[in-house]
Amino acid sequence: MAATFVIAQGGGPTAVINRTLVGAVSEIRKRHPGARVLGARHGVRGIRDGDYVDLSALPEKQLDLIGRTPSAALGSTRDKPDAAYCEVILAGLKKAGADAFIYIGGNDTAGTQQILTEAAAGTMTFVHAPKTVDNDLVENDHTPGFISAGDFVAGAFLSVDLDFRALPGVYVAIVMGRHAGFLTAASAAWRIDGDSGPHLIYVPERAFSAKRFIEDVRETLDRHKRCIVAVSEGVSTADGKALVESLVPADRLERDAHGNIRLSGGDLGMAFERALADGLPGKRARVDTLGYMPRGYVGMINETDSREAFEAGAFAVEAADRGGGSVALQVENGRTVMKLVPLGNVAGKTRHMPDSFLEADTNRLSTEGLAYFERLLPRKFDVGKPFV
Amino acid sequence: MAATFVIAQGGGPTAVINRTLVGAVSEIRKRHPGARVLGARHGVRGIRDGDYVDLSALPEKQLDLIGRTPSAALGSTRDKPDAAYCEVILAGLKKAGADAFIYIGGNDTAGTQQILTEAAAGTMTFVHAPKTVDNDLVENDHTPGFISAGDFVAGAFLSVDLDFRALPGVYVAIVMGRHAGFLTAASAAWRIDGDSGPHLIYVPERAFSAKRFIEDVRETLDRHKRCIVAVSEGVSTADGKALVESLVPADRLERDAHGNIRLSGGDLGMAFERALADGLPGKRARVDTLGYMPRGYVGMINETDSREAFEAGAFAVEAADRGGGSVALQVENGRTVMKLVPLGNVAGKTRHMPDSFLEADTNRLSTEGLAYFERLLPRKFDVGKPFV
Repeated sequence: MAATFVIAQGGGPTAVINRTLVGAVSEIRKRHPGARVLGARHGVRGIRDGDYVDLSALPEKQLDLIGRTPSAALGSTRDKPDAAYCEVILAGLKKAGADAFIYIGGNDTAGTQQILTEAAAGTMTFVHAPKTVDNDLVENDHTPGFISAGDFVAGAFLSVDLDFRALPGVYVAIVMGRHAGFLTAASAAWRIDGDSGPHLIYVPERAFSAKRFIEDVRETLDRHKRCIVAVSEGVSTADGKALVESLVPADRLERDAHGNIRLSGGDLGMAFERALADGLPGKRARVDTLGYMPRGYVGMINETDSREAFEAGAFAVEAADRGGGSVALQVENGRTVMKLVPLGNVAGKTRHMPDSFLEADTNRLSTEGLAYFERLLPRKFDVGKPFV
Repeated sequence: MAATFVIAQGGGPTAVINRTLVGAVSEIRKRHPGARVLGARHGVRGIRDGDYVDLSALPEKQLDLIGRTPSAALGSTRDKPDAAYCEVILAGLKKAGADAFIYIGGNDTAGTQQILTEAAAGTMTFVHAPKTVDNDLVENDHTPGFISAGDFVAGAFLSVDLDFRALPGVYVAIVMGRHAGFLTAASAAWRIDGDSGPHLIYVPERAFSAKRFIEDVRETLDRHKRCIVAVSEGVSTADGKALVESLVPADRLERDAHGNIRLSGGDLGMAFERALADGLPGKRARVDTLGYMPRGYVGMINETDSREAFEAGAFAVEAADRGGGSVALQVENGRTVMKLVPLGNVAGKTRHMPDSFLEADTNRLSTEGLAYFERLLPRKFDVGKPFV
């Protein structure tokens, strides 16, 4: 009897997570002609509920189009199953006759696959295919989804910096990133000269001080006549608390099923608006929350990211044939290569942006940091130097 | 002696305002070989202060690159000169030996040119070249800058709608637009099917009711399992007050030099977050402020917009030769044509989005509205239909 593969997508969508799905389906067709491919709707929920879309016979043309569509075409979930939930999933997979389950997602998704691997005791194969705009998976040089999101953020800051050269003031944009500052730091990738913003970058890896922030802005205004700031939503004060936790009354803090505080709301933005109004009265200051834009903007799907996402999906099928594990994107001799690593190396772990990516005493990228982002995110658009 | 042209850029930058500058410079070189072309820095401030960049001999290659650069390369200003200020500007123009002054901007800019025309009493020629992402100039079918900004907004809503198909909930994005809802309504241009968001569109032209809003969202959730909302920053309640004015304490309202209330802050977003938390408790809801992104995003410069912006600049030089006035983009037989209209027709006037662009009883675009936006903003990216 032909093999049955179940595939699902978990966590926050990205611009290229569907390319990973398409890469996996294509490789299954190549390696296992006649195999059944079931897509579970909304991640593990679809397996629990027996809610599948049969991808086995999906025409190539439709498959190709889905691969160029941002967000998770199968739907996603924030569920982070415990051992009991995993037993239900395992029963669902058995009922579907699955030989292998490929789950595309971040470190929580790797965690689910690790629990399932243990529970299945060799009766089934489990593969984690990487995906996250946060770029926070250990074992990976970078993750599928990050380059497109980083391009969006880099383009946003290049554009806003030009806007504020024309009409000077202070600009703060809050960027997704709970624990890792990579996406926020990507804001500097497309700087055009030494005068370019972002002039200040605040990431979760470095303690934030409101007092120091105002001083930093004031110094930047003296030097550049404007000040462009990139802030991670997960930025924290020295006591280890998320900044939003210090600023928002406890009874108004919203938490998700994992107990994580919600960071993407307007509170943090408002806090920055007030801090600037108090610290630099009368100064034109604007705060935007980039929010959901970076993670799946249809106009900024990066070709390299798209290709690597496809390769990660294809390699996930090879990984299933080799007994399962986590697919990792590593760089050898300047080329991205796919590696198979143990699920336990990735599950539940967060890769932080190295402290050496920022200069020691300023909130600017170091030479090392810039080199990383300029390698991954070469500027896609040529622009001229303004006359002001 | 060769002619002298002064050119300046006013108001909020756009993705293609530099193409209008380049169009004007190119046409001057063609029509008036040897003419002097002075770019005033930061709009009329540069004329007042004698702060010019000499564009006469700028190499073609550099000119071309500037034309592909978003934001106002000469810098901009929010100054809205009165008669006395205009006397100072006129003196500055005379000192520079100007024969003609081309000012690229919105309806305030046309107003400045009208005052200057009267003050100069025939000694000099004044041309207004149109620019605004608000699309709110009378006499124009649409304005340079709007198509690129509209593309950005349409792409943002297509992308977020796909994101919320994967992880359902309520999403609200606040879009620039003080008095005119065109840019907010552009959010619907790239809908892929009848299930697509935005499901609700709130523009300044229709009175906003917080109670009705919650009912609208609830009904949409019942029908589509998610609700994607586009809101203009200038949305107003039935008493004619900007919504933000009803929500924010008077002493916290910020006003610009023209007495306009600042709308771009986080207050409106927070008000929506709270309204949703109160009206639909426990429901996942997210609010983003698109803020500055749409008006000059480097990755979304539309080719048609870029070409028309260039043509508007070139035609402004012809308009100067014909005695001055305002350049208007009109559509004849499906083609955009440049027309010369009196400054007084455009100055200080706001073109609103026709009420017939929305359905009578719902906050959705009518067939007429959709036809307008789909003509101007054809979808640039093909996407597949998700499986959820």
